[in-house]
Amino acid sequence: MAKQPKLRIVPLGGLGEIGKNMTVFELGNDAIIVDAGIMFPANDMLGVDYIIPDFRYVTERKDLKIHGIVFTHGHEDHVGAVPHIADAFPGVPLWATPLTAGLIQVKLKSRGSQRSATVNVFQAGDVLKVGPFTVESYQVCHSIPDCVGFGINTPYGIVVHSGDYKFDPSPVDGNRTDYAKLAEFSRRGVLLLMGDSTNADRAGWTPSESVIDEAFDRVFRAAPGRIMVATFASLISRVLQVAKAAERHGRKIAVAGHSMAENIKMARELGILNIPADMFVDLNRIGQMPANRVVIMVTGAQGEPSAVLSRLATGRHRQLDVEVGDTIVISSHTIPGNEEMVNRTINRLFQRGADVIYDPIAPVHVSGHASQEEMRLLINLTNPKYFLPIHGELRHLRAHSRLAMQSGIPPENVFVVENGVVIEADKNGVRMGERVPGGYVFVDGSSVGDVGRSVIRDREMLARDGFMVVVVNVDKHTGALVGNPEIISKGFVYLKSADELIGQIRDTVSDVLASSQGSNGRRREKLEDSLSRFVYNETKRRPMIFSVINEK
Amino acid sequence: MAKQPKLRIVPLGGLGEIGKNMTVFELGNDAIIVDAGIMFPANDMLGVDYIIPDFRYVTERKDLKIHGIVFTHGHEDHVGAVPHIADAFPGVPLWATPLTAGLIQVKLKSRGSQRSATVNVFQAGDVLKVGPFTVESYQVCHSIPDCVGFGINTPYGIVVHSGDYKFDPSPVDGNRTDYAKLAEFSRRGVLLLMGDSTNADRAGWTPSESVIDEAFDRVFRAAPGRIMVATFASLISRVLQVAKAAERHGRKIAVAGHSMAENIKMARELGILNIPADMFVDLNRIGQMPANRVVIMVTGAQGEPSAVLSRLATGRHRQLDVEVGDTIVISSHTIPGNEEMVNRTINRLFQRGADVIYDPIAPVHVSGHASQEEMRLLINLTNPKYFLPIHGELRHLRAHSRLAMQSGIPPENVFVVENGVVIEADKNGVRMGERVPGGYVFVDGSSVGDVGRSVIRDREMLARDGFMVVVVNVDKHTGALVGNPEIISKGFVYLKSADELIGQIRDTVSDVLASSQGSNGRRREKLEDSLSRFVYNETKRRPMIFSVINEK
Repeated sequence: MAKQPKLRIVPLGGLGEIGKNMTVFELGNDAIIVDAGIMFPANDMLGVDYIIPDFRYVTERKDLKIHGIVFTHGHEDHVGAVPHIADAFPGVPLWATPLTAGLIQVKLKSRGSQRSATVNVFQAGDVLKVGPFTVESYQVCHSIPDCVGFGINTPYGIVVHSGDYKFDPSPVDGNRTDYAKLAEFSRRGVLLLMGDSTNADRAGWTPSESVIDEAFDRVFRAAPGRIMVATFASLISRVLQVAKAAERHGRKIAVAGHSMAENIKMARELGILNIPADMFVDLNRIGQMPANRVVIMVTGAQGEPSAVLSRLATGRHRQLDVEVGDTIVISSHTIPGNEEMVNRTINRLFQRGADVIYDPIAPVHVSGHASQEEMRLLINLTNPKYFLPIHGELRHLRAHSRLAMQSGIPPENVFVVENGVVIEADKNGVRMGERVPGGYVFVDGSSVGDVGRSVIRDREMLARDGFMVVVVNVDKHTGALVGNPEIISKGFVYLKSADELIGQIRDTVSDVLASSQGSNGRRREKLEDSLSRFVYNETKRRPMIFSVINEK
Repeated sequence: MAKQPKLRIVPLGGLGEIGKNMTVFELGNDAIIVDAGIMFPANDMLGVDYIIPDFRYVTERKDLKIHGIVFTHGHEDHVGAVPHIADAFPGVPLWATPLTAGLIQVKLKSRGSQRSATVNVFQAGDVLKVGPFTVESYQVCHSIPDCVGFGINTPYGIVVHSGDYKFDPSPVDGNRTDYAKLAEFSRRGVLLLMGDSTNADRAGWTPSESVIDEAFDRVFRAAPGRIMVATFASLISRVLQVAKAAERHGRKIAVAGHSMAENIKMARELGILNIPADMFVDLNRIGQMPANRVVIMVTGAQGEPSAVLSRLATGRHRQLDVEVGDTIVISSHTIPGNEEMVNRTINRLFQRGADVIYDPIAPVHVSGHASQEEMRLLINLTNPKYFLPIHGELRHLRAHSRLAMQSGIPPENVFVVENGVVIEADKNGVRMGERVPGGYVFVDGSSVGDVGRSVIRDREMLARDGFMVVVVNVDKHTGALVGNPEIISKGFVYLKSADELIGQIRDTVSDVLASSQGSNGRRREKLEDSLSRFVYNETKRRPMIFSVINEK
């Protein structure tokens, strides 16, 4: 009998977060992938549009056959890299629940992937045969409908991948996390639990999405004029909550924001979003309606400068203006790094006379992720032999691993790893294996990966103090300066009011050229050194300085 | 009888926050200033070192005599601009409590102000005669000792300025907020209350600083090796709490970080920090002590790249290395905008094998500012006729103003204003007046104010996509290209691996020059336009593009 191949689990990508955007499950030469998401750049990743997992490890393994990519849910950090994936793995089928599949199709259309992709649609609870694995999907609650986790059957036991989850006792769509399935996995024997760690430092139990209904009722009762609700474009269940509140309080819904409108349209076509057509009103028609009969769903709750909310805050929206009497609800969690932009947007909306409701003013948003007590519950329900915390930064994985140990999993069976560390399993158990390249790649403009650390470092220097290029003509025989040096500079000083400094820089150039000999290259170096020193002494700044010496 | 001059109150500076860094109180031609602080730049204020209030309104009012500058407490956002103030208002005396005065002196020494300043030291509770005002100082609790608020006596009643405050029932230094004085102001009649709004969106009552003692005890009991506590360099009361915990658990204290060491030295000399000398141990000596006998105070709790904690996280500290078994406590609130840096630092410390304790893992920090119930208490205690929320962003002022109205102050007597809006008072009451320039000024390197919006915008563009300068030589008779164009570019692409693109750019240059006629200026414009278009089509990026055409 042939030797049974090892199981290898490889978390890839994620910006600081582990196993978030993409995970590979290999059994010998056969593999499947769970999720293919993107991250948004940190504030100091200058000019980067977004970040995708570095999956070259997979594409370079010519021996490895990818049988399918299965998705847990439709958020950007789990499906956003689909256009890249479709290009890199042509012909590999995708597997997703109806809403997730819909969001993937919208994405493929709008991003203009080179290839189309086959999306196999399954329902939560369906069992998928993908390559060597039997993948049992099960319903989980999160902040978007149609989310699943997976029980992946392997020769060494079941691996449970939690997806993004919470145990919401009263979810908006009525679909609770599937306790029975988790218990059944436990009865059959769970080898390894891979659990969402996002809120591992939060005590207690995450509130149900339904607390938002009560908060909305209070806001809708009190609002004297229009209401605008800002949230993520993909937060389909929030749209349903707003629609229900609107119905209760006699208002109609308009939608501002292309991506949100597209998602709502798709979700209604799929029957996931059951809102009667007469509840909606066109954005262009709300001007003719009484202000207190309207609620507008808007994008831009993260303060993104080009989205609707930020345009409203700065008076740059084509169809809408914020008016005194408007009530604006920020119904989303602020992603770390976006606090400044969100706070600034809120202040500007107040400045324009709106009343702004945000957490902690009122509970108009709750987390979609499990807190500590739910994590303990998942561990207890599945009773795994080994535990791998995923979906979170290292600090969250540590906190989650402490919970697992408190729940009785031996410390040596708990693995806190970084992306690229291979988790191996065979009949002797689970252990940490080798490390493969598992980082991330910057996407900037139309190219993927050509902007690396050194370009970012240059952008940092330019962002701090700008640059200066000095172009001089010299006599090709004597080396003496001919004419006036030309100075090009941006981001250093405001040139129009820096006549004195510019004069001194010109003097420095002519001094250096008068005193330096040697090759053109050496004279350029000398010139750049002297200018750097002079500029630093005068201004205590360090612009990037370059020179060109033209011999005439 | 001469007409009584109007009282004018002018909040200045502050980045989004109102009346935070500086407030001017004028009575006719006589004035005093409360506080002179700095703010740290937002993430998108590229290259800016810090921000000071724009006080040109004051320096340009030649008719106005400034009689003194009084300080509420020693935090950067209230004293940080002292070197600039000392230069701008030579000879004007400063008034401060002992610790605040000490911190001001440390600052004047280290920043190298051109002039020395007279600092008059007063004790909380002292009554100061400053110009036309009798200023009654009173003790308040905050997160640094020796804090005061002021009751400023004016011809129209008392104006109470709260400073930064909380009603801590068990403060570290035993000095409670002076309830009796506030009640006395109320008996005599408070015209206007200016109240700290920082936590106006937080329900309840801010926990006492003493809850930290219990958290420290738990950490000190459990820590197997060294403990490091990271906090603000000026958080003198936290140093005292750490010293007491160290004493209880048989550890000695070392200090890493120049500014913190200086502040501790000063506070001990002033007798404000009563820690026996034998509790301290030199940083160089801790290597010879058992790990579980040491606690190290470190700077850098905001993730600042050059401070101790960040150096430890990246292995760049000269004297210290993080070791497995170390316990690191982040004992400070993360200032909005710094979340990414702080989280990254925590993750890196975990990566190096330390255990990191931070809020919400344990209550190792509490806010120094009043929450809603304390705000209501202050309003009730002082019973003011008018209310001006200060110290907070517009959203906080709005929330605070709602509390004031709920407490019975008529809406028309509550003023939510921005910096530069003058609040006027005379015998007819208080009202909003004119608006004066009241913004802020960027400090970058050695110069103040020369970096404005346009330079920042250029830095933004450079940060996003870099720049490219193309220098070409042309024949002065035919205008034809001579030799190869020279290309200088940073932050756009990694030039060494962009041969193909560079080749295409060279081709574009020679095509444009072959087809364009006219003046040098027109040809440059044409060249830059064509290059921008070409580069955008190829890369979907927009570097700043410049050209120089040399005629030979």
